[in-house]
Amino acid sequence: MIRLDTREPGFEAGFSALLDMARDTTARVDAAVAGIIAQVRQEGDAALLDLTSRFDRWTPASAVALRVTEAEIEAAVAACDPALIAALDHAARRIETFHRAQLPQDLQLDDPAGLTLGMRWNAIDAVGIYVPGGKAAYPSSVLMNAIPARAAGVARVAMCVPTPDGVLNPLVLAAARRAGVTEIWRIGGAQAIAALAWGTASIAPVDRVAGPGNAYVAEAKRQVFGRVGIDSIAGPSEVVVIADAAQDPARVAMDLLAQAEHDESAQAILITDSAALAEAVARAVEDALKTLPRAAIAGESWARNGAILLTRDLDEAATLCDRLAPEHLELLVAEPRALFARIRHAGAAFLGGFCPEALGDYIAGPNHVLPTGRTARFASGLSVFDFLKRTTWIEPEEAGLHAIGPDAVLLAEAEGLTAHARSIAMRLGQ
Amino acid sequence: MIRLDTREPGFEAGFSALLDMARDTTARVDAAVAGIIAQVRQEGDAALLDLTSRFDRWTPASAVALRVTEAEIEAAVAACDPALIAALDHAARRIETFHRAQLPQDLQLDDPAGLTLGMRWNAIDAVGIYVPGGKAAYPSSVLMNAIPARAAGVARVAMCVPTPDGVLNPLVLAAARRAGVTEIWRIGGAQAIAALAWGTASIAPVDRVAGPGNAYVAEAKRQVFGRVGIDSIAGPSEVVVIADAAQDPARVAMDLLAQAEHDESAQAILITDSAALAEAVARAVEDALKTLPRAAIAGESWARNGAILLTRDLDEAATLCDRLAPEHLELLVAEPRALFARIRHAGAAFLGGFCPEALGDYIAGPNHVLPTGRTARFASGLSVFDFLKRTTWIEPEEAGLHAIGPDAVLLAEAEGLTAHARSIAMRLGQ
Repeated sequence: MIRLDTREPGFEAGFSALLDMARDTTARVDAAVAGIIAQVRQEGDAALLDLTSRFDRWTPASAVALRVTEAEIEAAVAACDPALIAALDHAARRIETFHRAQLPQDLQLDDPAGLTLGMRWNAIDAVGIYVPGGKAAYPSSVLMNAIPARAAGVARVAMCVPTPDGVLNPLVLAAARRAGVTEIWRIGGAQAIAALAWGTASIAPVDRVAGPGNAYVAEAKRQVFGRVGIDSIAGPSEVVVIADAAQDPARVAMDLLAQAEHDESAQAILITDSAALAEAVARAVEDALKTLPRAAIAGESWARNGAILLTRDLDEAATLCDRLAPEHLELLVAEPRALFARIRHAGAAFLGGFCPEALGDYIAGPNHVLPTGRTARFASGLSVFDFLKRTTWIEPEEAGLHAIGPDAVLLAEAEGLTAHARSIAMRLGQ
Repeated sequence: MIRLDTREPGFEAGFSALLDMARDTTARVDAAVAGIIAQVRQEGDAALLDLTSRFDRWTPASAVALRVTEAEIEAAVAACDPALIAALDHAARRIETFHRAQLPQDLQLDDPAGLTLGMRWNAIDAVGIYVPGGKAAYPSSVLMNAIPARAAGVARVAMCVPTPDGVLNPLVLAAARRAGVTEIWRIGGAQAIAALAWGTASIAPVDRVAGPGNAYVAEAKRQVFGRVGIDSIAGPSEVVVIADAAQDPARVAMDLLAQAEHDESAQAILITDSAALAEAVARAVEDALKTLPRAAIAGESWARNGAILLTRDLDEAATLCDRLAPEHLELLVAEPRALFARIRHAGAAFLGGFCPEALGDYIAGPNHVLPTGRTARFASGLSVFDFLKRTTWIEPEEAGLHAIGPDAVLLAEAEGLTAHARSIAMRLGQ
């Protein structure tokens, strides 16, 4: 764990090193992925059967067996703990409400010069959602990826999830059903992304692919980009907690560890203006680590990437936070709204003492798919905007054409585009 | 030029071939670009001086000479035709009005369960705009890239433009001044993108890079993506014109050629329900080609990529249009609004007989940077949204934490994330 104090001379060098720390150790798998995509494009369903048998250790009888049936989904839902199904439904309702509130309005401007201008929002027709299998199969991620798509109005949401050894995760299927996923395929890895982007005899192609995945999935998304839209490729997760002297060190420590337990590359940073709190949290982290099932992962993350930054005041904390542009930002301070107003760059913010970040991971309503690795400087969390696109439009009356046409002709001629100029001029009677 | 008729048996095969036509012949320059980026990262300003002298055939005296001075900008503006400056100003005002109207509202939801949820929009801090030099140096592109950034509230807009043989394009400088660009650098190619993304001693790094460019610029944007945000990488441009029997063939032909004159890879497609209009437009295109200065380019584009599709009715035209998802769509029909309501996928639409597409290229107000190559299925034109990002936030009261916390604990435990669960449970007094 890194400890820095803004009053000490080495601070700027240490902080710069923290900013430049490369936590992403994703393997390069470009060539392997290119081969898988080529195979799916050439062989279609046959490639999916072959690759599933090779990588997921089960052999589908035919392409039909790749699609999860209604009966399987119903059996999965019935097998889940009813309290969990109720919790999933509670979360889904809240996520739906928040994302529906994001839906933008169409724009229409009636220009007195004699034109009407507008901008229209439309949902994408078909979207693919990738859900990782195995240990990282999170039902909450199904909700967070599929609900915004459906809230945006996407008619077809095709989900791909690998089923290693043929085993389905019932809660993932229950989440998919609740979120409004319209078809579920038990296909994983780069082959799933290729099938979604290019289509096969069984799977119709989609227009956009979203959802987290391993290095193969991330590289496959990179390679199909342009053919289809993709969401951002997430790096390791991080949290910045800004806390003042009045906070409970045990709570601050657990919030840091909730980030650190994701994986060894995760990063948890405390920024505080209280030297006493800094000390107490450092001790509380060590105490809490003794009791956590995922202590090996969380401890490694904290040791390697964790940091405690001591500042002169909270204003300085806000400035450092903007340079870090964290994915998650907790404001454990007396006046969280005022401090939040000072900060420009964060994926999602959690204000006040009743808001551990984990509330936002599951149930509060905003999305948990957020920009990592300082990309919150220019990127945003997943939302309905990722599943909508805009068409602008112009409708001039004859007067409007005459009001703006002559200047357009001048500009087109200055750029040497004669047909552009003439297409306007001939309507002006020139 | 391709001619297809939906009533003929070969139509579907021919139309599929049209959809799959690969017009983008961009050379692969990955390795060369990686070398240039590495050189700029290692050598900074010295690399920019070296590369400028090699590729742009002029030798800056020092890094200071890379920045265009206020005096140079003022001299450039003074050298321009006042009528052109006035036309540029007219266009800029209209583009500003339209893009300011796009600005979204922040969201705040007061949840009766005892939480406040919100979504806040913020401008990106610093943006780089690339402007191609030489023959494709278009002042209109400066306006279309820089004005949305400034309308979004971006404080710093750094423009890079190559100046082959040291020659500045006065109208490009005038457009930059009018659009609110805050610094202008005479640097081109991959080295400009590298300097914007990574910074040098002279040039502070930006958070996002936008603007068109050649194969080197496009590849450089691909390679710096993640370090900074980028806009979409544009392919060859295209238009679909849907026209009914009542249209003037000469106007339709000129609108098609305005697209075709961009470059040989451009594509112009007429869809009509009138066999007579199809014939007349085909003849009118040949006639108009005899009189155009850029006839060689436009003729090559029309011969290679142009198409006339004859349909049974306009409803069928709308269906074909959605499969093409064109960058530009002209609706030269009696009831353009009704037809537009039938169409889901297009970058920008131009409604009615007084709306040649070129009006939108220069002056109407909406952006001319639009999704190409069928990407309008999932992508949108440049807008203020490209220069804004969102931060979601949550602020529960104690009652709100108790209302939603227990279900979040259940879900966290089901996912095996114990620290997540405990960070909530310890605040619930569990």
